[in-house]
Formats: sequence, C-alpha cells, structure tokens
Amino acid sequence: MGKVLVIHGPNLNLLGTREPEIYGYETLADINDMLQKQAAAHGISTDFFQSNHEGDIVDTLQQAQTKGYGFIILNAAAFTHYSIAIRDAIAAIKVPVIEVHLSNVHTREEFRHKSVIAPVVMGQILGFGVDSYFGAMAVAIRKMKQKLN
Amino acid sequence: MGKVLVIHGPNLNLLGTREPEIYGYETLADINDMLQKQAAAHGISTDFFQSNHEGDIVDTLQQAQTKGYGFIILNAAAFTHYSIAIRDAIAAIKVPVIEVHLSNVHTREEFRHKSVIAPVVMGQILGFGVDSYFGAMAVAIRKMKQKLN
Amino acid sequence: MGKVLVIHGPNLNLLGTREPEIYGYETLADINDMLQKQAAAHGISTDFFQSNHEGDIVDTLQQAQTKGYGFIILNAAAFTHYSIAIRDAIAAIKVPVIEVHLSNVHTREEFRHKSVIAPVVMGQILGFGVDSYFGAMAVAIRKMKQKLN
Amino acid sequence: MGKVLVIHGPNLNLLGTREPEIYGYETLADINDMLQKQAAAHGISTDFFQSNHEGDIVDTLQQAQTKGYGFIILNAAAFTHYSIAIRDAIAAIKVPVIEVHLSNVHTREEFRHKSVIAPVVMGQILGFGVDSYFGAMAVAIRKMKQKLN
Amino acid sequence: MGKVLVIHGPNLNLLGTREPEIYGYETLADINDMLQKQAAAHGISTDFFQSNHEGDIVDTLQQAQTKGYGFIILNAAAFTHYSIAIRDAIAAIKVPVIEVHLSNVHTREEFRHKSVIAPVVMGQILGFGVDSYFGAMAVAIRKMKQKLN
Amino acid sequence: MGKVLVIHGPNLNLLGTREPEIYGYETLADINDMLQKQAAAHGISTDFFQSNHEGDIVDTLQQAQTKGYGFIILNAAAFTHYSIAIRDAIAAIKVPVIEVHLSNVHTREEFRHKSVIAPVVMGQILGFGVDSYFGAMAVAIRKMKQKLN
Amino acid sequence: MGKVLVIHGPNLNLLGTREPEIYGYETLADINDMLQKQAAAHGISTDFFQSNHEGDIVDTLQQAQTKGYGFIILNAAAFTHYSIAIRDAIAAIKVPVIEVHLSNVHTREEFRHKSVIAPVVMGQILGFGVDSYFGAMAVAIRKMKQKLN
Amino acid sequence: MGKVLVIHGPNLNLLGTREPEIYGYETLADINDMLQKQAAAHGISTDFFQSNHEGDIVDTLQQAQTKGYGFIILNAAAFTHYSIAIRDAIAAIKVPVIEVHLSNVHTREEFRHKSVIAPVVMGQILGFGVDSYFGAMAVAIRKMKQKLN
Amino acid sequence: MGKVLVIHGPNLNLLGTREPEIYGYETLADINDMLQKQAAAHGISTDFFQSNHEGDIVDTLQQAQTKGYGFIILNAAAFTHYSIAIRDAIAAIKVPVIEVHLSNVHTREEFRHKSVIAPVVMGQILGFGVDSYFGAMAVAIRKMKQKLN
Amino acid sequence: MGKVLVIHGPNLNLLGTREPEIYGYETLADINDMLQKQAAAHGISTDFFQSNHEGDIVDTLQQAQTKGYGFIILNAAAFTHYSIAIRDAIAAIKVPVIEVHLSNVHTREEFRHKSVIAPVVMGQILGFGVDSYFGAMAVAIRKMKQKLN
Amino acid sequence: MGKVLVIHGPNLNLLGTREPEIYGYETLADINDMLQKQAAAHGISTDFFQSNHEGDIVDTLQQAQTKGYGFIILNAAAFTHYSIAIRDAIAAIKVPVIEVHLSNVHTREEFRHKSVIAPVVMGQILGFGVDSYFGAMAVAIRKMKQKLN
Amino acid sequence: MGKVLVIHGPNLNLLGTREPEIYGYETLADINDMLQKQAAAHGISTDFFQSNHEGDIVDTLQQAQTKGYGFIILNAAAFTHYSIAIRDAIAAIKVPVIEVHLSNVHTREEFRHKSVIAPVVMGQILGFGVDSYFGAMAVAIRKMKQKLN
Repeated sequence: MGKVLVIHGPNLNLLGTREPEIYGYETLADINDMLQKQAAAHGISTDFFQSNHEGDIVDTLQQAQTKGYGFIILNAAAFTHYSIAIRDAIAAIKVPVIEVHLSNVHTREEFRHKSVIAPVVMGQILGFGVDSYFGAMAVAIRKMKQKLN
Repeated sequence: MGKVLVIHGPNLNLLGTREPEIYGYETLADINDMLQKQAAAHGISTDFFQSNHEGDIVDTLQQAQTKGYGFIILNAAAFTHYSIAIRDAIAAIKVPVIEVHLSNVHTREEFRHKSVIAPVVMGQILGFGVDSYFGAMAVAIRKMKQKLN
Repeated sequence: MGKVLVIHGPNLNLLGTREPEIYGYETLADINDMLQKQAAAHGISTDFFQSNHEGDIVDTLQQAQTKGYGFIILNAAAFTHYSIAIRDAIAAIKVPVIEVHLSNVHTREEFRHKSVIAPVVMGQILGFGVDSYFGAMAVAIRKMKQKLN
Repeated sequence: MGKVLVIHGPNLNLLGTREPEIYGYETLADINDMLQKQAAAHGISTDFFQSNHEGDIVDTLQQAQTKGYGFIILNAAAFTHYSIAIRDAIAAIKVPVIEVHLSNVHTREEFRHKSVIAPVVMGQILGFGVDSYFGAMAVAIRKMKQKLN
Repeated sequence: MGKVLVIHGPNLNLLGTREPEIYGYETLADINDMLQKQAAAHGISTDFFQSNHEGDIVDTLQQAQTKGYGFIILNAAAFTHYSIAIRDAIAAIKVPVIEVHLSNVHTREEFRHKSVIAPVVMGQILGFGVDSYFGAMAVAIRKMKQKLN
Repeated sequence: MGKVLVIHGPNLNLLGTREPEIYGYETLADINDMLQKQAAAHGISTDFFQSNHEGDIVDTLQQAQTKGYGFIILNAAAFTHYSIAIRDAIAAIKVPVIEVHLSNVHTREEFRHKSVIAPVVMGQILGFGVDSYFGAMAVAIRKMKQKLN
Repeated sequence: MGKVLVIHGPNLNLLGTREPEIYGYETLADINDMLQKQAAAHGISTDFFQSNHEGDIVDTLQQAQTKGYGFIILNAAAFTHYSIAIRDAIAAIKVPVIEVHLSNVHTREEFRHKSVIAPVVMGQILGFGVDSYFGAMAVAIRKMKQKLN
Repeated sequence: MGKVLVIHGPNLNLLGTREPEIYGYETLADINDMLQKQAAAHGISTDFFQSNHEGDIVDTLQQAQTKGYGFIILNAAAFTHYSIAIRDAIAAIKVPVIEVHLSNVHTREEFRHKSVIAPVVMGQILGFGVDSYFGAMAVAIRKMKQKLN
Repeated sequence: MGKVLVIHGPNLNLLGTREPEIYGYETLADINDMLQKQAAAHGISTDFFQSNHEGDIVDTLQQAQTKGYGFIILNAAAFTHYSIAIRDAIAAIKVPVIEVHLSNVHTREEFRHKSVIAPVVMGQILGFGVDSYFGAMAVAIRKMKQKLN
Repeated sequence: MGKVLVIHGPNLNLLGTREPEIYGYETLADINDMLQKQAAAHGISTDFFQSNHEGDIVDTLQQAQTKGYGFIILNAAAFTHYSIAIRDAIAAIKVPVIEVHLSNVHTREEFRHKSVIAPVVMGQILGFGVDSYFGAMAVAIRKMKQKLN
Repeated sequence: MGKVLVIHGPNLNLLGTREPEIYGYETLADINDMLQKQAAAHGISTDFFQSNHEGDIVDTLQQAQTKGYGFIILNAAAFTHYSIAIRDAIAAIKVPVIEVHLSNVHTREEFRHKSVIAPVVMGQILGFGVDSYFGAMAVAIRKMKQKLN
Repeated sequence: MGKVLVIHGPNLNLLGTREPEIYGYETLADINDMLQKQAAAHGISTDFFQSNHEGDIVDTLQQAQTKGYGFIILNAAAFTHYSIAIRDAIAAIKVPVIEVHLSNVHTREEFRHKSVIAPVVMGQILGFGVDSYFGAMAVAIRKMKQKLN
C-alpha cells in the first residue's frame, strides 16, 4: 500500500545498550521492530536508517523521493538544532516529514527548544518516549489511507 | 477502562462554521465525534469542554483529577502563549496532559513559536490538522493500556 | 443605515468617577453618549459593552458578525498588550475593528508600546483623549458611507 | 479600627489539600485563619477572596476602595507575571497593596523573576512560605496604626 | 478661524501616478484637495508641503509656529523610523502634531513598527488609507473648535 | 533566646542626617534602636554593622555563623546589584538571610530591578521604608520561635 | 542598446584624492571612466551621479525610471545602513538596482554588516575594491542582453 | 595662529529665542560670540556653521581640511545618534573633531546614550550647558599651542 | 594561464532536475558548463566539486592550494550559515575565495542573512541567479589577469 | 575662593612610571601638579586622592561636602563601569562632579562604552589625554566664578 | 596502567606545515610525539585521531568507552562552537573528556567565546599554545593515578 | 630559579573547613602546601595571598612585577565576573597570569560563564577541582623552564 522511511540521527545508535536504567531497555532495533509491525498491520512496508554523519542524512533524504516513500519519520537528534543542510533537503523534496523526539525538549537546555527543521516539516510529535515514534507512525498511516480514498 | 478529557481553548468554537474553504469543513463537534469513536473502540469514555475564558479552563483542569480522568488532551489555542495560570494548573495536577495544535505553529508568527505550557505537559503533537487530535488520542490510549498491564 | 459596536476593556468603567482632576470629568457614560449622538446624526445605531473579563470580550467579538455590526471600535486597555485570544477573535471575524487608546501609549511605559492586536485591526487612533473615540467614529461613519455608494 | 482584604490568585485554592509532603499541610483556610487572628488581636477585621479568574480579581480590586479597606494583601500567583489588567486596577485605586509570594520566585524559572505589578504596589514580601502573609499583615497593621496616630 | 499645515515625507510624491492598481488612483494632489475642502467647510485654511529631504522638513516644522498654524498633520513616511532631527523639531515647537500613516505599519516589516516621533506627537492615526488623513483633519478641527469655546 | 545581625550596605550611613525632607528624619541609629527594641521584646539580642566596603561585608557575613547568629537582616544597597562576592558569602554560610530595601526598587532605574543576591537569600521585603526592616525582624522573630518549639 | 545609471553615495567624492596610499590612487572619475568604457564596448551608455545628500539620491532614483535606465548600480556608502527613504525609493521604482561596496563590509564594524536596502535590491557585489563596480556592470550588461534576446 | 570651525547641527538655530525660561536666554549668536572672543584672546580665528541638513554638514566637514582649520568643534545634535554619513566624513579628514553636547545625554532617553560619531572623534565634552562649548574651545586652544611649541 | 575551482555545497546537486518551474531549468551541469566556457575564453581551466558533506568541502579547500588554483568560487549553500570549520579552512589557505549565492539571501529567512564565512572571503556576489556565478567568474578572471600584468 | 577635589580611581597610580613609551611620561604627580597650578592662578585650592579600593572612594566622596569642596573632578577608571556604590555616593551629595577619562572610551572595548555614573554627574570630558583633566578644571573654575558673581 | 585518546578536530592537520612563522613550527605529529612521551613516562599509552568530519569524531567518541580509554583529550577546533552532536556523544559516554584549545579563545572573535561542549566536559585548558595539551595530559595522568590509589 | 605568586579571591578562605562532605576536605592551606611542594621540586619558590577585598588584590597584582614573580596563578572567584579593576591591573603588568577555577563554571549559573579577566590572562584551567591549580602550576613551571633555555 505504501512505504515509510524512518531516519534516526546522531547518537541514537546508543539507545538501550548503555545505561538502560536511565534511557530504558529498548534498543533502536526494538523501536524499529515495533514500527515495522505497526505499519505492516496496515499493509505498509518500512525502511530504517541511522547515521552520525549529517551528509549521509542529507543524501538519504534526497533519495527518498526517487525511492517512492509516502512518508518520512525523522528524529534528527542533535542535528535538529543547527543543521540547515537537513532543513534545506527536507524543503527540497516532496515527501512529507514528521519530526519526532523521545523527550520533551522544552524541559531541557534552552538550545534544545529551537528546531531549525520545524518550519519545513508537516508536524511534530515529542515527549512520549518510544511512543513518540508510535504516534508518528499512527498519523502517517492515517494520512496515507486518507490519500488513497 | 478509563476516561479522557478533551479541552479546547478560545475561538476554537468557530471551527468549521466559518470560512470552511480556509479552515476546513470539520466543526468542533465533528472532531469531538471522531475522538469519541476512536476512544470508545478501546472501551475508553470521553468528555469535552470548550471555553473562551482562561479561568474556566483552570477550573476544569483542577477538577480533572477528582473526576478520575486518565489523560487530558488540551488545545489551549491563544492561551498557549501567555497563560501561566493554565501552566500552573497543569503542573499542580497529576493527570498527564498532551498539548495539541491544528497547525504547525513554527511556520506562523514568531510569538506562536513559544508555548508557556510546553515544559509541564507530557508531550506535544502539532501540525497535522484534525489528525493532531487523532495522534494525541492514539498515544493516550496506548499509554493507558500499558499502565493497565 | 448600519450599526457600530463599541467595546471598552478592563478598568475603563472607572473613568471620570475617580480622580477627575487627573483623568477628566467625562465618564464612560458620557463617552458613549457622545458616540451615540455622533453616529445617530448619520442614521447609524450604536451598542456599547464594557468588561474586565477577557473571555467576555472574546465572546462579544465573536457574536458581532452574527448581529450584523458594520464596524467595531475597541479600546482593549490592558488586554492590548498580551491578549492573543482577543487578537485571534478579531482575526476570525469579518467585521473591521478600529483600535482606540485615550493616551499616547508611546509616551508611557515600554510595555505599552507593543500592541498584540495592531497587526489584525484595520487601523489605530490614539493620543487624543476622548477625541480618539470621536476620530474612530468619524472614520467608521465615512467608511460605511463609502461602502453604500 | 480598620479592614484588610486578602486576595489569593489562581491555583492557590489547591494549597495543602494536595501533595502536602511537598507544599505543606497548611490549607488556604489555615492561612486565612492565621491572618484573621493576627489582625483581630489589633482590632482589625479581615476579608478573604480567591479566584482563578483574572476578571474577578480586577472587579474585587476596584470595589475595595468603595468598601473602605485600609490595606490589600495580594498574592496574584501566576497573574503576577502577565496581568496588566490587574496592574492597572491596582494603579487606579487608592488602597495600598502589598504583593506577597510564598516562594522565593528568584530561585525559580526565569519568567517568574518578573512581576508586572511590582511597580504599582507599595512593597513586596516573598520567600518565607506562609510567613510571607504573616509579614505582610504585620506591616499592614503597623502602617494602619501609624496613620491613626 | 485658523490654519492647518499638512506635511508629506519622502516618496509620497509618487502616490497615485505609479502602479495605481496597487497604491490606488488617488494622487497627493487629490488628498490635499480633499483635506482643503474638509477644512474649508469649517472656516479653516490649509497649506501643503512635500519633500524627500529631511532638512527641508525640519526647516518647515520650525517655521510653522511663526506662521501661526494651529495644527500640523505629518506623514513622515520613511523618516518616521530614524529621523531624530524631525523628532527634535517637533519637540521644540508648540504647534501640536498629528502623526499619520496610510498603511497599518504594524502589519509590515519589523522596522516599521517603531516610530521615533511617536513619543513627541499628540497622537497617531494609521491604517485607513487616505482616510487616515481624513480622521486626522477631523480631530484637528474638533480640537481647534474646543479651544475657541 | 537568640541573636540577629543587621548589616547595612554603602551610603546608608547618610540616612536622616542629610536632606531629611526627602529621605525622612530617621537616622540609621534610629532604625537600629527600633529593631533593638522590637527584638528585645521577644528576648532576642541584636548587633549592627555598616560599611561602604564590600570586603568588610563579606568578612562580616563569613563570621556570622561562628558567632552564633540565628538570622541576618541585610540591606546591601548598591552592592545588591553587582556583588557576586557577597552572594557567594551568603551561599557559603548556613545562617538564613533576609534581603531588605527601603524603597520599592521596581519603580526605580532598570538596573535596580535586578538583585544578584535574591537567589541565595531566604526572602525579600522591600518598599515599606523603615518598616521594611520592621517586617524583616517580625519574620525573623517568628521563624526563630517556630524553630524553638 | 540601453542605459545604466551609476550612483555614488556620501564621501565617495573623496576617493583617490586623499591618502592614496590607503584608499588607492583611483579617483571616482577613474572608476566612472572604467565603467563608461566597459559598457560602451557593449553599446550601452552610462550616466553618473554623486551626492552627500540623502534627498538628492532619493530624487535621482525616482527619476531613473522616467529617464529610461535599464539598470542602476548603487554604492549607497553610509546611507546603506540607515536610509529607509532610499530603500523605499528603490522599492517604488521598477528599474533593477545592484548594490555595490568597495570593501568587504562584513570584516568591518558591526553596524556595517546590516544593509537596510539589501532586501529591495536585485543583488549585492562587495569586497573586490574597484572590481566590485566592474562585476556589477558585467552582470548588468549580461542581464540587459538576455532581455533583448 | 590658527583657525577653529564650529558646526551646529539640526534645531540648534532655535536656541535662546524660544522658551528661554527653559533653555536659557543665550542664543546661538551669543554662544558663537563667546567662542569668538575666547579664541581671539589666544590669536585664533573662528568660523561658524549651522544647518538642519545632514548633507550640508558632510560637505562642510569635507571642506574643512582644505580650508586649513586646526580643530573642529561639532554639536551634531540629533544626527549624533544615526548619521553614519557624518561619521564617515569625520573619519575621512585629518582635522581633529571635538564632540559637544549641551545636556548630559546619559540622563535623557535611551537612544541618546549612543553616539555613532564618538568612535571617530578625538574626545567628548557634554553636560555643562553653554560651558560644554567653552571647555571644548579651551582644550582646542591648549592642543593647538602645544603643537606650536 | 591559471585554474579556478568551483565548489557547490549541500542540496545544489538537485538544481534544475526538480521543480524546474520554480528553480529554473538549468542544472548544476549547465552552470558548470557555462563557467567552463567563460573561463576557457580567457585561457583559464576550471574544476568542479559538489558535496552534501561538510568534511569533504573542508578537505577540498585544504587541497586547493597544493593543487595550484588561483581562485575558488564557493556557494556553500546551507553551510554558509553555521560551518565554522569551512570558515577556518578558508582562513587557513592563501587562495582567494569568492562567496556566491543564487538568491538574494537578505530577502529570505532571518538566519540566512548571516554568513559565517563572509569575514574571511575576498567578496560576495548574490541575488542574480545563475549570473551570480557568472559575475564571480568575471571578477576572478579580471583579478588573475591584473596579477599577471 | 574655593576648593576642588580631584579623585583618581584604580590603577591610575601606575601612570607614567611604567611603559612610558605607551602611556606617556606624565605621572599622576605631574597631572596633579598641573591642576594645582591651573587652579591656583584663579585663587582656588586643590586636594588629590587616589585609591584602588572602591570603599575608600565612596568614603571620600561622602566627606567632600562636609569639607566644603565646590567641585569634584573624578576619573573613576575601571569603577566607572560597575560601581553603583560610587554612583549612589555621587547622587547623595550636593557637590557637582565632573567625570573624566584620559582615553576616548568609545573606541575601546564594548563594556567601556557604558558608564554607570554618567547619569548622576554634571558632565563628562574624555579622550584628550591629560588635557581631559585640564578641560574639567577649566569648566570647574568658570562655573565657580559664575556662582560668585 | 591505562590509555589516553587524543582527538584533534578540523583544520588541525595543517598545523606547523603552513605559515610556520605564524602558527609555529610544531606539527600535529610533534604534538602527538610530545604527548606520547609525557604519558609513557608514567606507563600510560596513547592513541591519536584527527578528522575534518564531524561524524567521524562522533563515531570515535562512541567507541572510546568500548576500547577502554581512561581519558580523552579533545581539541574540537571549529566544532567547539556548534556541534551539538559531539556534545551529545561526550554526554553519552562515561570516559571523562578534557577540552583543549591552543589559543585563548576569549581574545578572538565573539563566536569563539562560546563552547557548546563546555557543559559536558570535565574541564577546560586553553591559551597556552602547545602547552595546553601538555597541561591536559598532566591532569589526566594525575587523575588516573589518584583513581588507582 | 624563579618565583610564582598564587592569589585566591573572596570566600576561598572557607574551603575545606565548612561542609567538607560537599566541598571536599582540602583546605586552602592544603592546596598551598601541594603547590609549594610541586614548585619546589623544580627549584621554584611560591608565595600565597587570599583576600575578600578587591582593592587588596589589585594592590597585590601591581606589586607582583616589582617583586620579581615569573608567573601568577589567580583564582579570582566571584571577582572573575565583574571586577574590571582586577582586569585592568592584570593588563597593566607584564607578569603572565593563569586563570584558575575549581569547578567547571560552564555547568553553573549563566552569569558565571562570563569572565571579564579572560581576555587579559595568558590562559584558563578550570573544572578539575584542586587539580586545576596543579595543572596551572605544571604549565607555569614548564613555561619558566622553556624561557630559561
């Protein structure tokens, strides 16, 4: 029925394997697994990408349109706050992007309150831990279905 | 299984009935209807409240805990940007609150980029139109179910 | 020929009855009386509303369109500087609004230099004392006549 | 000998009845009781008012002069930081106002460091918990006695 | 009965003759004509001055008092935002000045929100197009009549 | 029953002896005398210190704990706004400090609105003239009594 | 084939004749001569104007359209940073303007980093010394030729 | 022995002839006369220039070097705060400039605290009324004598 | 006669192939082709490099000097606004760099007004579309020729 | 005929004895000697004080009135920029103070542009090296003479 | 006894080989050699890494913990000022990091005064040239020895 | 071989003797003892000075050069953030100064992030607790040895 691309930014590869008592026991693999199942239940396939390199994420975003993704779920992590290159890549493609954050960034350091990509994404979901990804996929599925009808 | 309270802030009562070619044809009643069905499918009941009066929203938030709501979905509209009274009410109660906005506020006027309630809510969902409410209810249902297990 | 609604914001009910040597001897009733006569001379009827409650002013603005007013003259007083709810209400209705202030707010405290409603009203008249209302009504009458022709 | 009006702003009605291990076991009723006795010992009567509605507090301040209060003790809570309407009401009446805060607001969030009513009150007492009210009443009593002599 | 001086600042000489579909078909001559008639109906004479040169406007303001004008209507255009020389000239003379703008400057670029002359004029009228001049003349006439009685 | 130390900052030695028609006829000696009596009535002894030297005030604060004072009442005057050394001294000792100002600093120059010591004192009392000291002593006495019980 | 107008702002008349070891030996006449030849080689004629008077530059810009210039090359010098009157004149005419600076203004004082005319010109060329003018003329010629084809 | 040029900026031509009870009875002619005598006593001649036109002052500054002045005394009045053109003219010539103000600009409006010419003049004298000019001439004479020896 | 290196930053590889009705039909290959011919006509050879990776651009800049380029034309795109690493690389090499932008960045979002590389390049050319590159090459050629003579 | 007190702030004791090739060969003793003679020629006596201790300067200012000085010349050096205690001392006494600086502080670091004492002194003289003191004494003498007549 | 990892950021590979008269003759190899010997004298081994790629530095930091390093010495160069990705990597690992800079960044451009990694490193050493690294290694050795005891 | 002077600023005399569980058990005497031994091992003698008085630290810095110290290690504590007098004293002497802080000031209050002395010291070492002093002495010893060779 469609494809969703999930992109995880820098340092998210460390999730769950380190200090699980703090960050939770769920690894990035667990999150991807949850999302794969959630989408598959609606006949939607999923791909996943993680990188600590800004340029790789720009490359991946550029290629998303050619590859026919219907939606992108993006947790840009630290790049959220300064990567205008990622912002420009999002603005340059037609695939809608949902910005996701595990934590409520507005309760953290001042510089995390500002997202340079917020003005070019479709919407934001943040603060629900792993369920931020769940909510993003739920919205993506619903929007893709509405488009079909 | 539980109850969710949905609160709509000032001017949202005008939704759908005026300039539908701009703001869409869905009225507040339509949104409430959608949310009621979405929750009922999981055995969760819903209540709805709209007011243009800040004090009424503070009163309602304070009473939410006594009345046993498991979650509050709040679109504070204009109050989002200056009502510290609503912020303090949210901080004073134990019921988790999800902040919702129809539009992507980060593409609008500068003063709408700042939410004074963001630091005390559980999380934010914004930019998906009516589906922002849908995503919020989806997360609320999931969180309430997790708590039961 | 038409109707004009005049809305007075918080603390304006105290005009004239207290410290008249400072604020002048004209009460809100006197101002309303002057405006009623000024409009009546052109066959235009007038209604008046005063409240210290932001929500009441939002309600009143929302209802102005249904009630068929051709113009609203609004002295939002203190709400001028922070009530985004009133701003959104003005933006949501089609009745043109004239912002009025008795004093030249730019000669007063820094925070009074900023009007959050200025970007959504048709225009501002300020600094002429009671004559600010007079000038506003003069412009409203002229604009309503131009529309008729 | 005289009358003192004590006004409590939004969310202060929750004091003591919720999370007493954090906010203390004293309810608003306890505070009012303490103040009533402290004043009565000097032949001064007291009235009390609490509201989550900004407009109600403006109304109450306006009526204080007519009702003959010699002093007002005001904990405006969240309204302290943005209610210019309350500021204007204080400035419009002749009854002196003492601004009170339970906590030392300067150790809390940045936005709580700013009080928009501070420039129009007689003075501030803050940071002593319930004893902030006690100190305010002590000063009010002393000032009222000095005026008598 | 008296004289009013109308001063138009830089680039206003282009009004009406260029891109009339945008700025309207009324030329500066039309505006002056309207004002001349409006004033004459009350026995008041009018003079008009336009310049792109800041120094010429300062000179003209200085001479206004000697020449016996009862009121000055000033649209300082671009100079509004930085000419402290014009501000000082207004402050130095006793003839009251009404600041006028065709557009609602608060809906335009940020730098147009600030008027360096606002603190020294009697009042402002802005946002009503050509009717901003009309309202200014209406107030000037009314004030001059009040002074006569 | 206990001891209270009262510290007066720079230029306060001039109180009352110069321009009494402006600053009042009460000298620093008068204030100290009032406080001594107010405390003695509750069996509490008092010591007083004034200096125009920042270092002397730091030294005195450091020694307060060794000397067994139960409370410090501090009017840091000009040092309030920039002496981080005094702030650090207050933070380093365990004796609670009450910050006092004669005038309502929030009605004065902008730079007086900021107190660098406010975040480390127990509380502030300001704006009541000499009665600011009276209120501070009243609170100190009450707190010391509560501790005894 | 067409005409280009070159406008030099305040103090540029001093170029080359004073402190040539610092500012270079090329006078304004030399620059004009270079530009005249560069344009003539493409059949384009040139006119030149220098003034220390803001109003004269506004007048000249306004007249450029009537006189049929295809391009304006403008070094506004000091006026670059505050003349909103020149900005408005540029915005009011249809002749495209190229902003030129001899030096790289971004390596100089902070206030020279801001150009109030930048948002209304077609483009900027700066930092190449006299060759900034050369580059501007090269682009103007190319654009004028493209338009012809 | 040498020549000093005294330049007076906008609105200074009004000095003394208007509201003398406020600004003093000394006219610009009186000041010039005082300075002429003060300089002549040391064998130094003086010239004077006043204009409300920024461009005229730039022209005059540029010509000062050619005409052989040893010092310029400049009261730029309102231009002090925004005329970068005058700043650049001062920086471009070799004649030392003394900046003068009648009033203590630091006790007036915030925008008068900033002088854009201060970084390029030799020094400033301000706050002494007419004696600011006297002090400037005293320093100029002393510096010119030192140079001769 | 010499070599010029042209570097294109992130997302510029998308030029022309996507939404040509907006960004124009010219691809990066077209631009490079134009520049190659423009330079070749003067006996100058050209090399081209594009990357979405900041580190690759830093590497390329560092190697430019060893490879003997006489000039670098750099459109850093998004990196313009935050890559201090690229800034430091430019400052570390001796090859002069010309900063180029297709659009007039001063008419776009606020964050695009600031270039962190501007203070270390020779000059800027911006706002002329593809002709910004043309102008940059014209200046580079002229400067290289001047150096030869 | 009168007495003038000259106060030198921190680090000025190093003048002339260290790095004379930079700061000049004149010591503080030389400056004092020059001032003593300048004043004596008009029958005015002088006293001098230097300290690196803020508190000592506050003490000295307080005592100046009692000791009958007619004028104070103050170079507060580093204290100029943060000593509110010295500011308050100046404001508390009636002896007029002239603020002096050797260098043109507006050409130095940003933090030296701000003087916290400027709003309470009579006037400033700065930028003329040792002649700043000369000019200050010249003005003081003239003002003292005018007062006598 | 332990291992220390030294990471050098962008452009540091150019050290010593270019313009040695400015940056010194010591190459990165020389620094590494010095550090290797300094550590070896205490039985500590060292590894070195340099990259112009932010992502490579993030990868290297993440792997440091697995590889058993006891300390990291990091000169992030340009990345210091904006790489939140590097900041997050440092915060995510348990190996303590010492931030090093060759120059005293506080004497350079304003943007170099801010380090986004400073809040997550153990400490900073800067301004001593090559000896900044020496001091960092000295502290690392001492801390590692203390931990052993 | 040389002498090092160690200066400790306000409140550092309290180290170790109060709340040792928080600030550590090492007193200032312990630190001085450690540094004395560290220096003596290289034939370097040490002197120590502590004061809560800014003026005393200025005096001590001024005398350091006369007394022949080769290096100064300075922990200015609270004075770090506002004492321009200490900054000027450091700038006036030739003895190099190393700025030291026990804590990582960048993890503390905002106002501690700014050091007014940083631009005039040789370098900074901070965040290593007592080992910040150790690192400073290590660098001082190395620099003094290099100078000897």
